[in-house]
Amino acid sequence: MNTHFGMYVKFTSHKGKRDLLVKELLTAAKNLQSIEGCLLYIINSSSSDENTVWVTEVWESPEAHKASLLLEESKAAIERAKNLIISVESIELSTIGGKGL
Amino acid sequence: MNTHFGMYVKFTSHKGKRDLLVKELLTAAKNLQSIEGCLLYIINSSSSDENTVWVTEVWESPEAHKASLLLEESKAAIERAKNLIISVESIELSTIGGKGL
Repeated sequence: MNTHFGMYVKFTSHKGKRDLLVKELLTAAKNLQSIEGCLLYIINSSSSDENTVWVTEVWESPEAHKASLLLEESKAAIERAKNLIISVESIELSTIGGKGL
Repeated sequence: MNTHFGMYVKFTSHKGKRDLLVKELLTAAKNLQSIEGCLLYIINSSSSDENTVWVTEVWESPEAHKASLLLEESKAAIERAKNLIISVESIELSTIGGKGL
């Protein structure tokens, strides 16, 4: 079964900084529109914790994901966002398929 | 900001039953292709736990999600899958946007 590289990435923001973090992540998503290896990059806010943002990521491969981190726009986005963030954790997935992919 | 109703649903299967559960969930995803209110229904297997399946769901609204559970195909899929499942937990999200939605 051909699978993709997926992740649920949980960002915990500093108190009151979530909206700013969401804005930065939406900018990052816009930058990824032209990056073929990125299949999904969707920003979600947690319904139960006001400082948590979850990003749903699906990449063609782990290599495609790693390559994206070397892009100038990605480095700039990380630089801008890092002061808004307390912690980052991720759940690694093999994305199999379904509706919307 | 207009958001959608999102969920990460974690299924824990009985030992050795994950592949069967993935198959049932892929069938459910196929049934949802014609359901407008369902924007994303993507099946993932956990990379760290051999009995865990994660489903990425995005719905137009909570009501659209609830309505889908009343469909005959959904009821049939739940009936078939329930003997494969030990537990179901979900992370509720407000899905804001990004690439792929």
